[in-house]
Amino acid sequence: MAEYKVPLKDMSFLLHEVYKADEMWQQLPKLAEQVDKDTAQAILQECAKIAEQELDPIARQGDEVGVSFNDGVVTTAPGYKEAFNTYVEGGWAALGGDVEYGGMGMPKMLTAMHEEMLCSGDISFALYPVLTAGAALSLAKHGSEELKQRYLTRMYSGEWSASMCLTEAHSGSDLGIIRTKAIPQDDGSYSITGNKIFITGGEHDLTENIVHLVLAKLPDAPSGPRGISLFLVPKFNVNEDESVGERNHVSCGSIEHKMGIHASATCVMNFDGAKGYLIGELNKGLACMFTMMNFERIGVGIQGLGAAERSYQNALEYAKDRLQGRSLTGAKKPEQAADSIMVHGDVRRMLLNMKALNEGSRALSSFVAMHLDYATFGEGDEKVKGEALASLMTPIAKAFFTDLGFENTVAGQQVFGGHGFIREWGQEQLVRDARITQIYEGTNGIQAMDLLMRKVAGSQGALLKVFTDEVNAYIAENEADEAMNEFITPLNQALVDLIELTDDLLAKSKNNINELGASANDYLHVFGYTAMAYIWSRMAKVAQNGLDNNGESGEDFYRSKLHTARYYFTRLLPRRVSLIATAKSGCDCLFDINDELF
Amino acid sequence: MAEYKVPLKDMSFLLHEVYKADEMWQQLPKLAEQVDKDTAQAILQECAKIAEQELDPIARQGDEVGVSFNDGVVTTAPGYKEAFNTYVEGGWAALGGDVEYGGMGMPKMLTAMHEEMLCSGDISFALYPVLTAGAALSLAKHGSEELKQRYLTRMYSGEWSASMCLTEAHSGSDLGIIRTKAIPQDDGSYSITGNKIFITGGEHDLTENIVHLVLAKLPDAPSGPRGISLFLVPKFNVNEDESVGERNHVSCGSIEHKMGIHASATCVMNFDGAKGYLIGELNKGLACMFTMMNFERIGVGIQGLGAAERSYQNALEYAKDRLQGRSLTGAKKPEQAADSIMVHGDVRRMLLNMKALNEGSRALSSFVAMHLDYATFGEGDEKVKGEALASLMTPIAKAFFTDLGFENTVAGQQVFGGHGFIREWGQEQLVRDARITQIYEGTNGIQAMDLLMRKVAGSQGALLKVFTDEVNAYIAENEADEAMNEFITPLNQALVDLIELTDDLLAKSKNNINELGASANDYLHVFGYTAMAYIWSRMAKVAQNGLDNNGESGEDFYRSKLHTARYYFTRLLPRRVSLIATAKSGCDCLFDINDELF
Repeated sequence: MAEYKVPLKDMSFLLHEVYKADEMWQQLPKLAEQVDKDTAQAILQECAKIAEQELDPIARQGDEVGVSFNDGVVTTAPGYKEAFNTYVEGGWAALGGDVEYGGMGMPKMLTAMHEEMLCSGDISFALYPVLTAGAALSLAKHGSEELKQRYLTRMYSGEWSASMCLTEAHSGSDLGIIRTKAIPQDDGSYSITGNKIFITGGEHDLTENIVHLVLAKLPDAPSGPRGISLFLVPKFNVNEDESVGERNHVSCGSIEHKMGIHASATCVMNFDGAKGYLIGELNKGLACMFTMMNFERIGVGIQGLGAAERSYQNALEYAKDRLQGRSLTGAKKPEQAADSIMVHGDVRRMLLNMKALNEGSRALSSFVAMHLDYATFGEGDEKVKGEALASLMTPIAKAFFTDLGFENTVAGQQVFGGHGFIREWGQEQLVRDARITQIYEGTNGIQAMDLLMRKVAGSQGALLKVFTDEVNAYIAENEADEAMNEFITPLNQALVDLIELTDDLLAKSKNNINELGASANDYLHVFGYTAMAYIWSRMAKVAQNGLDNNGESGEDFYRSKLHTARYYFTRLLPRRVSLIATAKSGCDCLFDINDELF
Repeated sequence: MAEYKVPLKDMSFLLHEVYKADEMWQQLPKLAEQVDKDTAQAILQECAKIAEQELDPIARQGDEVGVSFNDGVVTTAPGYKEAFNTYVEGGWAALGGDVEYGGMGMPKMLTAMHEEMLCSGDISFALYPVLTAGAALSLAKHGSEELKQRYLTRMYSGEWSASMCLTEAHSGSDLGIIRTKAIPQDDGSYSITGNKIFITGGEHDLTENIVHLVLAKLPDAPSGPRGISLFLVPKFNVNEDESVGERNHVSCGSIEHKMGIHASATCVMNFDGAKGYLIGELNKGLACMFTMMNFERIGVGIQGLGAAERSYQNALEYAKDRLQGRSLTGAKKPEQAADSIMVHGDVRRMLLNMKALNEGSRALSSFVAMHLDYATFGEGDEKVKGEALASLMTPIAKAFFTDLGFENTVAGQQVFGGHGFIREWGQEQLVRDARITQIYEGTNGIQAMDLLMRKVAGSQGALLKVFTDEVNAYIAENEADEAMNEFITPLNQALVDLIELTDDLLAKSKNNINELGASANDYLHVFGYTAMAYIWSRMAKVAQNGLDNNGESGEDFYRSKLHTARYYFTRLLPRRVSLIATAKSGCDCLFDINDELF
């Protein structure tokens, strides 16, 4: 298996050449204090060391050994505690945190790249800090000053980790029907009772305390999603002097045996009159959870990308080394028994699919992260636009990147032939690990409905217009540039088709709302390929400029980027055509057939 | 997990209503003696019991426990020996065998359905008998009378199993570079020395002897594929009195740890001067192997289908039971806390994709099997046409069915949400098991090259014409039938486009042979969707006739079939449009980029 190398050059290219992140940061006061180009580069380089030297080496063993459960105690895989300590000592747990409570206040553009590296190194490991960072976001936004001083500071320091307790056995996508109860106590706290399943990092041995964020209902709460409140439930109660006190009435009942992410503890958590503290307002728990959702969901998208990048690097090294068969145009290396499989068109297809989709996903994720940063740190129009684009693009980032990530791990496995099916090469682990990203944090089907029904239809096209206006402006700016023709012409067509498809679906949905459910998945992918075409156009232009002006990334990098952009437009963007046909085909063929005839 | 139910009704529909198998069998003397409609039904029903009652119950445990290896001894999973004995006692090992040596001489149309059932029950188990049947085909066709009397009879009786030893560590897709040596001995036998990997069923405890078919080279053999010979190497030598004698010098060095098919023993086999017997002529070993390839490759396609059918049945039951969310058009079951997820368009999409593609694959596999039967048992024009269609369609059956099979196991897993990722539900096992079918017996990329380069281009379009003539005749026959319009019109378009694409690619390949490698994968899928459209048209017509004439499959069955046909044409056939665009995009974007720029 190839040693993982963080694609630092590509990350720098995106930050500094494509998105001019430094200029943006210097214009946003809260970021200008924290970060500039040099700081960003230092962060990426140091983080790369963690991913390459600490995580990559423990991932295979983590998969083989997994997490063990014994009478409520969860033990992580060999090397995990050491790697976690190194991670925490480096201050990485604070990277995106609120500076008032000890966080480093870094922009999402950087933390997103940080997350990608961690996930390429080892998704299972990454989930412990990433989930904690997500919970910290909710707490920072909605928690009381007291809760933040007591808990948030220790989460940023890495002393304590966190879990998010939403799902119950009968209640997953539909949280309105949860049964966990919260009974108000005289001291202002709540007594929490109920059972949660699929709780990532619900129990483990990496930190001295675990902070559970738990959705529960008061006895008199309204039914459905409007009756859900959010509570902080520590594994160990915290004494007045801030020391860790007695065990709270929360315990891990068992852990799940899963297809992948074996080294991530997926726990059944039992709350039996556990002491909890309200976060935010009563009955507004879902809203509190959803403030972090955009950050989390793009993070899951990036998990898919992380696995796919790892898979690409492995597959490329294998393809260059593996000698098998001959080039159709005649032996390339007649002195060897066979040519490397790089000579075969279908192997190149698989590798270039991976390369173009990974680089496209990374660029698009940076675009979404940038707008999350405008939404968080910006003001005025920029903030409004950032919120709009982040809101619109988040379900795409989550579902599109993870569908592509899974496809690409499978492609990387296929390059290995039979060796890809054998555990020792590690390729099959990436497939198994990546698979969950299409499912958790809202299945990709739910993301598609979020995009089409809540975002696009729900805003009556207003959110979509923010996107199409930006792309149209870019097209107008570049359509006179002949060198950009090969990108601008198909991009324009894709955009026109996306708008036309949207109008068609929204019009039809006025008569039958099922039109949205029937076409949502195809719609999300049409949107994804179109958005990626926009981003690839921008990268192609920057690469051409870099070539023309001897840019900092170097000639080979720019040439590779231009080739890959062409490949995307030639062989991947056409996928949207069939998806549009399917999306437009209407809902009758889905709903006319009775359930009994399935 | 739903209990597996063999889709007997669908199988009967295909055999007796769509393909009129009974009429065909009665016209072919060798089959007329062996099989008629009643025999076929009895076979399918009895075999269904094996799959449902013996294999389905051991599959999960087989995955968990797997195969164990201890100092050369391989022990199969709990229940395997008992199930294998039941299988053998039922006479199933002889099902497709040559009647002269104790086989039952059944047509491929039946054995293909038999294989599907076994694979839905448990792919790992199925591989032991299926590989033996494949080896038996080679031996029956090319072995000497003595070898057949001695070995073939015991393979049909189920006393002995077989393995096929082709791959070596450095030589998989490219068998021309194998290193295993065969040294002629004075007694007419050969001494075989070398190491083989990825040998399914190379060692196990199910049978008293194992018959290895081994590819090896004589010291003075021509280099490359024309110097390969095929040898029979028994695990235990057989005494003159037919009793099992001393251990031969062949042993299992280790077993592989794999992503899936854990209960199938995948062995490293070491031959250390083992006694072997030539099968067929010297240096014609690959040809001897390839005579069974069409039978084997369609069998691997059917493995993908088997897993996908199992996944569909599970997902459908889960979707009907799982209550989550509400129909977009208002609560369907207001008295329940939530509606079943069958109300959601995207869940229906996933289920109907599976249903339409599984039923289409089954029908298309029966079509290919029928032509394999004409090729084997027929005479004159029918035999020639059978050979042509079997040869042409085999790579499609292998690659298209397994790509769809994998897609469908993933879709079935997605219907389960988080529960699909947990081992206990069994859905994730199907994904892991199905994945290998895209890789072994020639990767799907190699199948695509076999189709486009060897079959289509290699015959200068002659093989393709056999297919297009048949479909064109069918279109001509039905184009006046208004009720068939919705199927015939798009089928005709698909066929016209396939022919046009073929012409385009063959023309371009005259200038640059890489055009074939670059487009082969897309081409195979375009062909697959088109062929499946033809088969779905035929099924739709038969279903409409059945409805009009109160046919034996019943009204619900026919209505379901018609709905599913419409679904296929509306939502699945359009996939070909993007594939055609990609296939036509040329090879430059694949080959213009230097290896160093990947």
